[in-house]
Amino acid sequence: MKNLKKLLIANRGEIAVRIIRCCREMGIKTVAVYSTADKDSLHVRLADEAVCIGPPPSSQSYLVRSNLIMAAINTGCDAIHPGVGFLSENAEFAKLATDKGLLFIGPEAETIDLLGDKVIARSTAQKFGIPITPGTKDAVANAADGLKAVKQLGFPIIIKAAAGGGGKGMRIVRSEAELAENLSIASREAESNFSDGRVFIERYLENPRHVELQILADGKGNVAVLGERDCSVQKNHQKLIEESPSPGVNDEMRNRMASGAINLFKELNYRGAGTIEFLVEDDSFYFMEVNARVQVEHPVSEFVTGTDIIRQQILSCTENRMEIKAGTLPIRGWAIECRINAASPGIVTRLEVPGGPGVRFDSFLYNGCVVPPHYDSMVAKLIVHDEKRDLAIARMNRALDELIIEGLITNKAQQQWIINDSVFRSGNFGTSYYKSIAEEVENVR
Amino acid sequence: MKNLKKLLIANRGEIAVRIIRCCREMGIKTVAVYSTADKDSLHVRLADEAVCIGPPPSSQSYLVRSNLIMAAINTGCDAIHPGVGFLSENAEFAKLATDKGLLFIGPEAETIDLLGDKVIARSTAQKFGIPITPGTKDAVANAADGLKAVKQLGFPIIIKAAAGGGGKGMRIVRSEAELAENLSIASREAESNFSDGRVFIERYLENPRHVELQILADGKGNVAVLGERDCSVQKNHQKLIEESPSPGVNDEMRNRMASGAINLFKELNYRGAGTIEFLVEDDSFYFMEVNARVQVEHPVSEFVTGTDIIRQQILSCTENRMEIKAGTLPIRGWAIECRINAASPGIVTRLEVPGGPGVRFDSFLYNGCVVPPHYDSMVAKLIVHDEKRDLAIARMNRALDELIIEGLITNKAQQQWIINDSVFRSGNFGTSYYKSIAEEVENVR
Repeated sequence: MKNLKKLLIANRGEIAVRIIRCCREMGIKTVAVYSTADKDSLHVRLADEAVCIGPPPSSQSYLVRSNLIMAAINTGCDAIHPGVGFLSENAEFAKLATDKGLLFIGPEAETIDLLGDKVIARSTAQKFGIPITPGTKDAVANAADGLKAVKQLGFPIIIKAAAGGGGKGMRIVRSEAELAENLSIASREAESNFSDGRVFIERYLENPRHVELQILADGKGNVAVLGERDCSVQKNHQKLIEESPSPGVNDEMRNRMASGAINLFKELNYRGAGTIEFLVEDDSFYFMEVNARVQVEHPVSEFVTGTDIIRQQILSCTENRMEIKAGTLPIRGWAIECRINAASPGIVTRLEVPGGPGVRFDSFLYNGCVVPPHYDSMVAKLIVHDEKRDLAIARMNRALDELIIEGLITNKAQQQWIINDSVFRSGNFGTSYYKSIAEEVENVR
Repeated sequence: MKNLKKLLIANRGEIAVRIIRCCREMGIKTVAVYSTADKDSLHVRLADEAVCIGPPPSSQSYLVRSNLIMAAINTGCDAIHPGVGFLSENAEFAKLATDKGLLFIGPEAETIDLLGDKVIARSTAQKFGIPITPGTKDAVANAADGLKAVKQLGFPIIIKAAAGGGGKGMRIVRSEAELAENLSIASREAESNFSDGRVFIERYLENPRHVELQILADGKGNVAVLGERDCSVQKNHQKLIEESPSPGVNDEMRNRMASGAINLFKELNYRGAGTIEFLVEDDSFYFMEVNARVQVEHPVSEFVTGTDIIRQQILSCTENRMEIKAGTLPIRGWAIECRINAASPGIVTRLEVPGGPGVRFDSFLYNGCVVPPHYDSMVAKLIVHDEKRDLAIARMNRALDELIIEGLITNKAQQQWIINDSVFRSGNFGTSYYKSIAEEVENVR
């Protein structure tokens, strides 16, 4: 599709705003969709057109595929951008859109499908020389199978749903006695969440880093790596702070990660933006999964590479081309993102946004806006960039000082506590870091 | 001074905010000064301390040297940052500060003095092989002298005050008959504005580009050039839109400009931030003046070089060091700044700031703030950065769309008109461009 004229954005909140901003710059008309709870939301105001697709919760609006497709067709859209979350990794939605003559801004449905099955994704990654966490090659059929695998792996292990995501169907097991029961719980959870009860077992790493590479690919075999992101500051698998580069990855590991990733995405003939996630422990890294979409934390990679990832994603999906070179892009400086989450819904009575050099604020908040109760708690992303990590931290501190959001209870003060904590500042932490500070952080107001 | 602990900012508005932001990141405490009209201004709120220095107008507060020095001493400051405008190029103020044991964030008083005298600055520049506009070497003593010079130069010519600036003592002359009278008017104006009636004559260029180089130097002979800025969109010598790089400067000219500038600033043993301004006509450029301070439009250079100019300015003045290399810095992409001016004072009843990639908003506005009538009309700077000029223009368009300032009449719509004008978009325009579109632009609301 050489001439994308009109795009439906099947999402809400800051990611919808982000995509609209990009389209305005590219001269692409936008259609927003909204639930009745979002009728005054910023993405509705900024889009060229807006269509109501139902009431909250999401299952009655943002997740109703037929409503989204209908809205796109009725407004004369050429394509659909799924954003993040919701239907962004739903192969059936991608296929439905394509069948209806709408370009899906993301990889082909078959690619989403393949990567969505974690057992297949693991074996595919391994085929390209990407290390995977020691674990079962296939789904575990029963407790006896599980026990056999565990004898080789040793405890602790983690049971994961083959079709999984978001912590569902996931169980950590530390002794033989707990194994059988947890296998069946995990399988039932997987069945009820994904209509697919298959689970597999991996060795569980206690405190790895979460490191991921930002990928862009043009669907013709050209694959670019836009550096890595470190997302180890997580609360219950929810990322809180992301940075690029990672303080725990050296050039040698970076190159090994990138070359495996390039091979994998090239073989998949991947199209658009994607992320390959790794767990890093000491000098080793292990494949976790591929996210076949853009991610919330993409702005840190935009800062260090100077690339507009959404623009390149759209170009690679619509025209099979990118304005960046294939291979590993040079990165410059250090970027950090703090997610600003609201503890409760509310009305924003005052918003003051930080400015100055190296500061970016992506949000759907505006003065007087309503934050409805039905959706994700993230209301804004504050991203900073500077030459070095300590300078970026100082800049984040300054920007958080300036940020004023009244009317909502947010985690701003908690984020500021973390970036000033000596462990965060040392750069030496893994995914269990948040748990170790949770008690202190959660008392910060 | 190795350990600058506390800095007084002898300014107001967005530049005071800009300097405070930098100091917070550097761990330097700040003292704001304010007139009674500015007591609730953003720079007062963001600084660690604030001192009232008198009522408006500026002649009774921001320009009262003794009040500023006293405020610095009484609050235990080590240094004074003069910002832009006001006393930022006042050699006597720099000397007074130094005499009182306060470091002046700028070049030495003697350097400011030398560069402030345009006749001396011209001959100094020429000494280092920098082309100057054909004109008189010394001040013109009388009408006969003037006539003799003009016979060589040809009309039109421009009479300028040796001690001048801001258009004062400046007259364009197009025929012999007007010469004598204009010389005496210019001289009287110069005398009354600068207590120095000396004037000189230059050939007048009808529609040159205004191009300037951003310089940083460490006071030990290391000089860095941070690319050029094109500031040709001017209304009555007031810059409206600035960009970097210049669409009218090629590599060859850029290198010639830079090498002359480096020689000049090295010889001056220059310290801090400075700008060397040129007029460009066809393939030639001519020295205009040096601004021995930071400039309003410095953010476009920050974007294309990835350098925090205020930080480097402070380091070079306090510690005689910079964190950037000497010589010509590589530049990346294209940056544009639109100055947002208010046509009248008022209260900001609503402010919505644009976000997303490559957008920066530097301002002293906040929701509910008062813009007093006594000061410069500029209330904000909107700066964007992207890979190429047309992309940067598209981004500026998008950002201006998002910017909402209610309660003030601003030039936002006029700026948007200009960046969408075919002449601006062609990149092919000089300082008389604004005059050619003034009638149309000024009807835009």
